[in-house]
Amino acid sequence: MDFRRYAEELAGAAREASRVMAELSAEEKNRALVAMAEALEDSRAEIEKANLRDLAAGEKSGLKEAFIDRLRLTPARLEEMCRGLRQVAGLDDYVGRVIDRRVRPNGLEISRVRVPLGVVAIIYESRPNVTVDAAGLCLKSGNAVILRGGKEAVNSNRALAGVLRRAARKSDFPAAAIQVVEVVDREVVDELLKLNNLIDVVIPRGGESLIRAVAAKSSIPVIKHYKGVCHIYVAASAGVESALRIVDNAKTQRPGVCNAVETLLVDRAIAESFLPRLYDLLRAKGVEFRGCPETRRILTNIAAAGEEDWYAEYLDLILAVKVVGGVGEAVDHIEKFGSRHSDAILTGSEEEAEIFLRRVDSSAVYANASTRFTDGGQFGLGAEIGISTDKLHARGPMGLEELTTYKWVIRGSGQARP
Amino acid sequence: MDFRRYAEELAGAAREASRVMAELSAEEKNRALVAMAEALEDSRAEIEKANLRDLAAGEKSGLKEAFIDRLRLTPARLEEMCRGLRQVAGLDDYVGRVIDRRVRPNGLEISRVRVPLGVVAIIYESRPNVTVDAAGLCLKSGNAVILRGGKEAVNSNRALAGVLRRAARKSDFPAAAIQVVEVVDREVVDELLKLNNLIDVVIPRGGESLIRAVAAKSSIPVIKHYKGVCHIYVAASAGVESALRIVDNAKTQRPGVCNAVETLLVDRAIAESFLPRLYDLLRAKGVEFRGCPETRRILTNIAAAGEEDWYAEYLDLILAVKVVGGVGEAVDHIEKFGSRHSDAILTGSEEEAEIFLRRVDSSAVYANASTRFTDGGQFGLGAEIGISTDKLHARGPMGLEELTTYKWVIRGSGQARP
Repeated sequence: MDFRRYAEELAGAAREASRVMAELSAEEKNRALVAMAEALEDSRAEIEKANLRDLAAGEKSGLKEAFIDRLRLTPARLEEMCRGLRQVAGLDDYVGRVIDRRVRPNGLEISRVRVPLGVVAIIYESRPNVTVDAAGLCLKSGNAVILRGGKEAVNSNRALAGVLRRAARKSDFPAAAIQVVEVVDREVVDELLKLNNLIDVVIPRGGESLIRAVAAKSSIPVIKHYKGVCHIYVAASAGVESALRIVDNAKTQRPGVCNAVETLLVDRAIAESFLPRLYDLLRAKGVEFRGCPETRRILTNIAAAGEEDWYAEYLDLILAVKVVGGVGEAVDHIEKFGSRHSDAILTGSEEEAEIFLRRVDSSAVYANASTRFTDGGQFGLGAEIGISTDKLHARGPMGLEELTTYKWVIRGSGQARP
Repeated sequence: MDFRRYAEELAGAAREASRVMAELSAEEKNRALVAMAEALEDSRAEIEKANLRDLAAGEKSGLKEAFIDRLRLTPARLEEMCRGLRQVAGLDDYVGRVIDRRVRPNGLEISRVRVPLGVVAIIYESRPNVTVDAAGLCLKSGNAVILRGGKEAVNSNRALAGVLRRAARKSDFPAAAIQVVEVVDREVVDELLKLNNLIDVVIPRGGESLIRAVAAKSSIPVIKHYKGVCHIYVAASAGVESALRIVDNAKTQRPGVCNAVETLLVDRAIAESFLPRLYDLLRAKGVEFRGCPETRRILTNIAAAGEEDWYAEYLDLILAVKVVGGVGEAVDHIEKFGSRHSDAILTGSEEEAEIFLRRVDSSAVYANASTRFTDGGQFGLGAEIGISTDKLHARGPMGLEELTTYKWVIRGSGQARP
């Protein structure tokens, strides 16, 4: 098989379709998204059949139960995807919005106007719902999308995308704007990542190793976050009950996600009263503590935290704890070991809160709230295609606006440059 | 020499300084910029002496006269740099601006606030004025800057940056925020481009080969434009006198720059009347024409344009000409051969203008004006660090706003996620 040619044809078709997509009205796009939701509902049997093939193959090849579970398309999950498409159809359309407009002394009228990015490639792992969720967001924002899911989900993804494309065709919508990589060999991804003349941005979604591999190979801009080593700093003036509740929430409400807290920094002045209470609260929920030497003088029976713990994204019921001497030390620790995702201060001092919010260089900085809120839905974006810890283009949760760019539109009446 | 260690120390110092920079007020930054301009004026003799060493070395090694000229720091050029610093001091500061703010139903107050990018590396060629111009823009926007100019200008750049740093120290401004790569070996650049944990963005300025080399090697996001293959499409309804004036301006006013026109597309209906007049006008200014077969039936003594001409950025008094059958063909040609820089339509039809402006996927799209206006100053940005033909983060001329990013700032009162 000629992987390069396959990648070029697929991306070329997406690029052609992106030109049509960019000109669709909000109504045309919304109508197609609703038609796609209806088509998915009407095609449940077909989708479940394809999914069963993936599940059977996965079980045969000995995939872990957690993996199989992520692969499974239950009726509830299908319904959730359809609800997502309808919700996205109801969101604002950014395409065509005028960001700003100025008339120059020479009479030139200069505007910046939002336009789609063009062709967006999404590279993800096992969950087939990403196929529908990501397609919905990319299409709504006027982009063509290339979807490359995990090879274990290839039958499910092919079936889902097939249904979306059939619905697109019926709505006079360019079906080629939805491209699924059905050839599972990794070489296809390698070839796609070279096509910077056809693909405008790559968004990898999954574990750190997948994302690092994509970023290392891609000659196309990548928007990504490697990991979320989120911190909470409990200052001396923090309200103890509130701090206990927030740290508990950030650690235990859903420990396997990127905005869960991994390292707790505690001011020396409050450590001796706060840490034992936190320990009792979280131990009862099965949280393992790892501490700096000072923490271990207070919580005498916990394990020591080594340097690797300060860098760790546990994604598990483990909490690293360090005693620090004030907000400056807390900020320095986050600068050195953090991942620029989400970091919070809990404090009774507004002045101290502002110092933390100003100095910590992360995508999301919090005062007196749980880091678990870093999410497009929670932030009011309506939906989220991913989270960026990069600094260019988009930072933190990325919604529909971040799936667009702008161009300069200049209207003149014969101006030449003197 | 340990290039890696040198690069890490230099970038590490910039990173540390960037933390101080991010907290400076507009007044502190502006005061330092003015002090730098004064210091440059007071240090003319020192700078000219260093520049003479570069000029002597350049002549000895047989550099071309045009190259030597770009290297030369005349009193007028020095004065221009100082004026630039003072002008940047007078521009708005974007750091700290609130982009948007929302209060969620749970009471969380969520804002997006502009912050500096952090550490910006500028990689450029022979002109030493970039050292001062780029430093001024980066510092004004709260960033630390790493400057790597051409090795032929190393003495001039070292002297200029030395003066800037002395002035910084006197203004209680972090002198380490201005880093000059004084070791000219290319390996230093290669090592710098790997430091994506210390440097936030790389902006290469210079010829296409420099920019391609930087983009290929960098693991840090790069903002760039490879080239400007700018088009003007003269529609059937264009005013002939106005079209002649605009094409003349776009081709001959300054042919060596990226926003000069390279390919002219002419509607078939007007070609026979328009092209001979344009030919007479531009031949008198020394412009060489290269045409498609149809053009050559009208302008019988011009050379043929081959496929490579449609891709060419001549940066010279050469114009490729193609006859097309309407706005659709013009847009298709630009999509296929263009470089997404600046493209214009000249037309008497507002409807046709809007089709072109909507469909052409370039950083700057014009109706009835010269492409030569694509420039931060002309667009009213006050200044320009470069032009981007990428789609992420910044498109077209990049000013001070594009040297910032944002972070999400969340102020709560004890919220945990349900």
